[in-house]
This record gives sequence, C-alpha cells and structure tokens, in this order.
Amino acid sequence: MNRSTRPTIERTTRGLQLDVSLTGVARGRRARALAEQLRAAIIGGSLEPGTSLPSSRRLAEDLGVSRGVVVEVYEQLVAEGHLLAGHGSGTQVAPRAARRSADAAPVTRLDVPRLAGHNPGQPDPALFPRTDWLRAVAAALRDLPDDAFVYGDARGAIELRSALVPYLGRVRSIITDTDHVLIVNGTAQAVACLVQLLTRRDRTATIAVEDPGSAGLVDQLRWWGVDLVHIPVDRHGIDVDELARSRADAVIVTPAHQYPTGVTLSADRRHALVAWARARGALIVEDDYDAEYRYDREPLTSLHALAPESVIAAGSASKSLSPALRLAWLVVPTNCILELAEIKANMDLGTATVPQAALAHFIDSGSMDRHLRRTRARYRQRRDALVDALRAERPGIHIEGISAGLHVLVRLTEGHDELALAATARALGFSAQPLARYRHRPGPPGLVLGYAARTPDELRAGARTLAGHLETEERR
Amino acid sequence: MNRSTRPTIERTTRGLQLDVSLTGVARGRRARALAEQLRAAIIGGSLEPGTSLPSSRRLAEDLGVSRGVVVEVYEQLVAEGHLLAGHGSGTQVAPRAARRSADAAPVTRLDVPRLAGHNPGQPDPALFPRTDWLRAVAAALRDLPDDAFVYGDARGAIELRSALVPYLGRVRSIITDTDHVLIVNGTAQAVACLVQLLTRRDRTATIAVEDPGSAGLVDQLRWWGVDLVHIPVDRHGIDVDELARSRADAVIVTPAHQYPTGVTLSADRRHALVAWARARGALIVEDDYDAEYRYDREPLTSLHALAPESVIAAGSASKSLSPALRLAWLVVPTNCILELAEIKANMDLGTATVPQAALAHFIDSGSMDRHLRRTRARYRQRRDALVDALRAERPGIHIEGISAGLHVLVRLTEGHDELALAATARALGFSAQPLARYRHRPGPPGLVLGYAARTPDELRAGARTLAGHLETEERR
Repeated sequence: MNRSTRPTIERTTRGLQLDVSLTGVARGRRARALAEQLRAAIIGGSLEPGTSLPSSRRLAEDLGVSRGVVVEVYEQLVAEGHLLAGHGSGTQVAPRAARRSADAAPVTRLDVPRLAGHNPGQPDPALFPRTDWLRAVAAALRDLPDDAFVYGDARGAIELRSALVPYLGRVRSIITDTDHVLIVNGTAQAVACLVQLLTRRDRTATIAVEDPGSAGLVDQLRWWGVDLVHIPVDRHGIDVDELARSRADAVIVTPAHQYPTGVTLSADRRHALVAWARARGALIVEDDYDAEYRYDREPLTSLHALAPESVIAAGSASKSLSPALRLAWLVVPTNCILELAEIKANMDLGTATVPQAALAHFIDSGSMDRHLRRTRARYRQRRDALVDALRAERPGIHIEGISAGLHVLVRLTEGHDELALAATARALGFSAQPLARYRHRPGPPGLVLGYAARTPDELRAGARTLAGHLETEERR
Repeated sequence: MNRSTRPTIERTTRGLQLDVSLTGVARGRRARALAEQLRAAIIGGSLEPGTSLPSSRRLAEDLGVSRGVVVEVYEQLVAEGHLLAGHGSGTQVAPRAARRSADAAPVTRLDVPRLAGHNPGQPDPALFPRTDWLRAVAAALRDLPDDAFVYGDARGAIELRSALVPYLGRVRSIITDTDHVLIVNGTAQAVACLVQLLTRRDRTATIAVEDPGSAGLVDQLRWWGVDLVHIPVDRHGIDVDELARSRADAVIVTPAHQYPTGVTLSADRRHALVAWARARGALIVEDDYDAEYRYDREPLTSLHALAPESVIAAGSASKSLSPALRLAWLVVPTNCILELAEIKANMDLGTATVPQAALAHFIDSGSMDRHLRRTRARYRQRRDALVDALRAERPGIHIEGISAGLHVLVRLTEGHDELALAATARALGFSAQPLARYRHRPGPPGLVLGYAARTPDELRAGARTLAGHLETEERR
C-alpha cells in the first residue's frame, strides 16, 4: 500500500505508450488524476480509437495503486463514453463518434435574437456609473444578512422594495407599500408575467397596445400568442374611445412619454382611461419607461396615483442606469399581487438578491439622484444639439414630442423613404428606426432617432448629413 | 419677472393656511418644488379634502412666479387625482377616496410563495464568500467593455460563457463551445424555458420526472400545465425500462446524485437512457444540481459527454455559491439552442450582465476552486458528524445514498410517522422533509435531512434527539 507511485516508463508501456503518472498525487486524489490524464490523452488523440488499454490489474501494478482505483476510473470513462467496457477484448478507447457526435459539428450560423438591437431608447452605456455601482454592491455585500443568501421572497429583496416605496412616492407620487411591489428582470419579464396573469384568468384575454408603439413589446406579446388590439395614438396619447370600443381586458400604455411619438397622455385622457378600466374591470399597465428623463418640467405623475386598484405601474433601471442590470419593478394592485408573485416564482423563483440590494443602496445613498442630475444634463445637451441642428438645416422640420427621453421622432412627408433614411442614419452613428417599425396601421413616414450615446458634435454633424439626404429626397 | 420668490406668510394665506415657499428655488425648478409641497400637504393631511385653493393668478402673484407655473402644477395635481379641476367653485383638494382607493387598505395576509422553503438541498448561506465575490464584481466592473451595458446576447454574457466552456470541460468532461451555452436565472428558469421548448413543439408533450424526485420541480411543471409521468428510481437510478414504456418526450434526471435518494445513475442505465433518447428522439435534461459536492471520489461525468445531441446539461451556482445569485447555465444541443435562446429572450431578454461577468472572474481567477475546496471540507465534516452520530445512536439505521451533496436520506420502516419526524427534525434545526413530499407513488417512509447550515456539534446533538424519537416510535 505504501509503494512508490512513480512508475517507470518501462512499467507503464508494456506494448502501449501510456503516458500517465501519479507521482506526488495524494492518496485520495489518484483516481481523479488518473481519469483526467486518460481523458486528456483520449480527447487529445494520443490514445487512438480502438486502442486496447492494459487490464486494471496490470495498470494498477504499474502505477503502484490499488486495483480499485483503476477499476473505478475505467468505469467512469466508460460511462462518459470515452472507453468501451471490456468483454473479452479488454477495455478499448471508444470510436470518436461515440464521444463527439454529429452535435459537435461547428455551428456556422447562430443568429441569436437581439430583440432590443438598434433600440433608439437605449441610454449611453459609457455613462454607467461603475464606481458608484461598485460602492453600492460593496455596501450590499456588507449589509445583507446571511439569510439573504438562501431562496427568498419571490416578490424580491425587502431591501429594494423598501427603498422603492419612498423613492416612487417622491419622484412619481406613487403611494404604496412593500407588500405591493414586485421586482422583475426588466420590463420584458414584467410583460411575460402579465401574459400569464391574463391568460391564466381567461385563455382568450386580449391586450391593447399603442399604435405606434414599442415594436419589441408587440413582438414579445405575439410570441406569447396573445390576442392583440392596436389602439391609435394621437397628440393627446392613446385614443380611449377607440380602446373602449375594443374588447381589450388590459392595456399597456406609456403615458409619461409615449414610445415612440413622445407625446404625453393628457389629463382628460388619463381620467377617461381610468374610468374605462374601472367600468370594464380591466387592467392598465403603465410603463414609466423613461420617466426620469424629462428636461423641461416635472413629468405628470403616474396613472397609478389615480387608480391604484386598476393600474400596474412598471418602472425600470434600464433607462436610468443600464438595461444590462435587468432590474425593473411593478407596483401591483392588491387583487393581483399574490397571483403575480406566484407567476414570478414559477418563472425563476425570484430576481438575484445582490444587485437588488445594490440598487437599494444606490437609491438610498443619493447616488441615483446624483446620477440622474448628471445624465439628465448630458442627454438634454445632446437632444438640444440634435434638434437645434436639424432645425437650423431644415427650418420646417417636424420634430414631435415633449422635451424628454432618449430619442426624437422626426415626422416626414409622404414620399420620403423612411427605411432608406433609417439605414442612412444608422450609418451616421444614430440608433435609428423607421416609424413603420412601430406602426400597426399605415401612416405617414417618420424617423426615430436615438441620441443618447453620441456627443453633441457627432449629433450636429450627423444632423447636417441627414438634413442633406432629406433635401435630396424632396428634390426628387 | 425678477421679483422675489420669498413670499410672506401674509401673502400666501389670504383665507387659507397654505404653507408653501419657493425661496431660493432656481427658476426651472419652481413648478416641481411647488408641486412637491402641495402634494405633501395634501397627502400629509394639512390640506383637507374639499379645501378650495387660491386661483392660479392669485397664488402666482403671492409666490412671485409666473401664472403658467401654477397652472402647470394645478393641472398636474389634477391629473394625479390630488386636486379636482375648478369649474366655478375653483380648484379643490380631492376627496381622499379619489387618492387612496380601496386598494390602499392594509394587506393583512400575503402568503407569498417561497417555493424552495425548508429545502434540505440548500447550502450554508454563512459560507457565501462575500469578499471574494466583491473582488469578482470589481474586476467585472473594471473589465467589461461599455457595450456590455446595453441589451446583449440573449444567451448570456460572452465572458461567462467563455469561462464555463473550459470549466465544464475540466470538472464535468463536457465538451462544448460558447455557442451552445445559455445562461439562465437559476435552474427554475431553465425549467420554465424547457416547458416552452417542448410545448411549443407539441402541445401535448409529456415530461418524465424521477419518483421520488424534486418536489419543487414537480410543483413548477404542474403549474405550467405540463403532462407529467413519474418514473420510479431504484438504487441504480431512474428505471429506464419504465421510462421507455411511458410516452415521455423528455426526461429530467439527476444522474450525479439523485434528489432526494442520493443514488447515482449506474453506467448501464446511463447507456440505456441515452439509447432511449436517441431511438425516440427525446430530450434528456441532466440536472447536475450538486455535482461539486461529492466527498468520496470523482463524480461520474455528465450524460452530456455521452450524447451531446440528446442532452441538455444544466448546472448552477445555487449549491456551490448561493441560490440568491440566480445563475445557472445550460449546455444545449445544436438542434435547439436557437429556439431556447429565443425563448429566453421572450422570458426576460437575458440575464443581468455584471453578476455573470463576476462569476466568470470568480471561476477564471481560481476563486471557485478555492471556495469549493473550503466548503467541500466543511460539508463533509458536517455530513460525517451527522451520519456517525445517527449510526452510533441507532446502529441499524438505513442511511441511503453516496457520500455527496447537502442532505441525507434516512430510510424508515413502516409504522414510523415521517411527517411528525420531519416536524421534530425541523424543530431541532434541520432542514427536513418527509420522503412523502418527494413521492408520487406511495412507499416506505423516510426522512430527508439537510445538514449544510449546521455545525458538527449541532448536528450531533440533533441526531441524538432524533434517534431518541425514532426509538420511542419503534417501542410503540
């Protein structure tokens, strides 16, 4: 038992160049080490398919280990498919096909969905506050109790829900409590949960969306197989009369800053919308997607404040910080919070705890307010640079929407080729989409331009070139 | 326009104690400040429902601001439901009902699902390596490129997929590439994605699970409305003949360390299982849930190594680090990676980036290996303390399963009350469940004991008391 584990080449090769050694390997680790070496030799090709291995007795003797170690290793490599068990002919290296199947053929084309690619609503990733975020993560890791590191409440970490209640009260006039807040992995997961909420209640539930509206949202709802109705948006926001004529059981709206037209839902429409929801027993999902980025005046506060029993208010860190954080929150009416928490639990048992606690620290410490002051000023400069340059070049240009957000909508007259212009704008470095991308009903062309990730100089230069293209098109 | 914004009490009170002031507030922020003060007064109750507010003209004069500011604020508070628009009677504070609806009634009972509560498979949260994890987050925040902070690849951060490929090759003999790895929010999300994969291909798809097997998994699959078949597990693992007789289109198995019996799937069964999947065109989902915690010898490597075209290999940081991280990975066959990536995108657009990059650093820097060495030694001590104490007290006790994982199964003879014993064990500080919790078919009683979060002394003391209860029951 105490024999040397240093085999000589002679002792291991008897008819086979088997380059393995257990020299210096501690007793309990010999099986692992032998398995690793044999596996490496097989995968690496130095042990060819069909090669017969020594019997377990002989290899054990050569290596100076007990026979059980070799038996165990052979069994394991057989189970892995690297060896063929020896009946008569002894243990052999398996044919390659048994190990690397057709599946391992190189994958030449993997167009993975990037649903949100070229999204003009994205913030500038260079402005992500890495240092402050690290500080928040450090505080979270310092302060979280041990039991935060087991499975938790499916609604989310109490730390973040507690931080959001006063924050949402202060910035959005949402009056709620931690029991009604649900943390999700971005607004996209909120949509997936909402689909479950509605279709589990009623298989034929219909969801109304804005037209024009978020293309990613429509794609996602269609993927989930939901019946959709597309309700027109005018300069006062969604047409509530049209909505009332639809059979919708729920509506997803962007009242603070409609995407992509940029209009706000007027006070009259807000009241009409709430009255519709109450009369029909319908649900309003209010996507406050970029409420933080209004530059001219205080945003109208949330619909939730008008009718907390009919409105799910959705907010997110995707625009204020980064979509890569995948952190969003829902303020949910009492009559569906338990159902939604159950849905979230069955989606993924809950959102990761440390980033939630970090966001809580980020809010509570004032870092969020500081970050928003800084980025709001920056985005406003960029917006102004773009809008001013476009207006200077094309005085009659129709730029729609309030002074808010991370994108503008340039309305175009019939005859402009919005697809070509969007492609041109992308080549100029804008995040750009033709308005058609967001439309259900046909309508006049338009160009949605994201300006968040470009400097004022870049935006001015881009605007000049784009204006030139517009002029050329008009001359044709 | 340049008048003082410091109102006297006299100027603001004319018949109404309106405690607002815009002293020192910068020009562009006056509307926001006024709205906040009025809202606070209304919510706080110092402005009673029914109170008439001054006309916008008069309040503007009192505060020394332009009338437009007050008009805007009044409109906003009307939209929020805090004020009623003035037709004749002037602007009034809205009745409380309009603001705090029935929905704001305190929620007295909110039993939110904690699907994984009392889970005997949980690691000790006190062993979460906070310092090393923070170091990994810091490295991630330092190294991630800016474009990691926009929406990314739905399959997950390239940093983590790149770190997992060699890691899984080394520890689990999984040969794959970054194209075939999908990051999800814990195994629970993997299950939700798998349900979509199967039921979108075939509405009537049937999934086979182990019996006994994970109760949380069965609950989740039932919630999603999947047709289930429960295949018996014996001491060699799942009964593949029984599986072959079922109409299952997929099976979810725990070959490395079956949950909760603790057996490993034998080499013969592994080959039979793979043969079944190939013949039927079925999918095997291999849940490698605690592969890191085998104490006696190297774990059998993954089924994936045998049949990468038929096996989705699922791994997770939930046992090795913490379930609160919500980080798991799937190694997916070529024929369904694109579908699964699309499903993941429609679930939540992808997992958060920073924690993924942190886990990549944690693996690449060797912190994972160090952490596993440390915790493996700790858990083994705890397991040995529990098993030795139980055997010392009750020499004939039947403790099933290999030396692995974070729980043991104590097989009991008929007549023992497993529910009462599990309750006793919980009162003693164990994470405990009766075996019945995991069974579909009836069978002899058993007790699943989680030992991860208890010290050896606590476990020995608990084992003694528990053994006393067993003896008392047997005497009856």
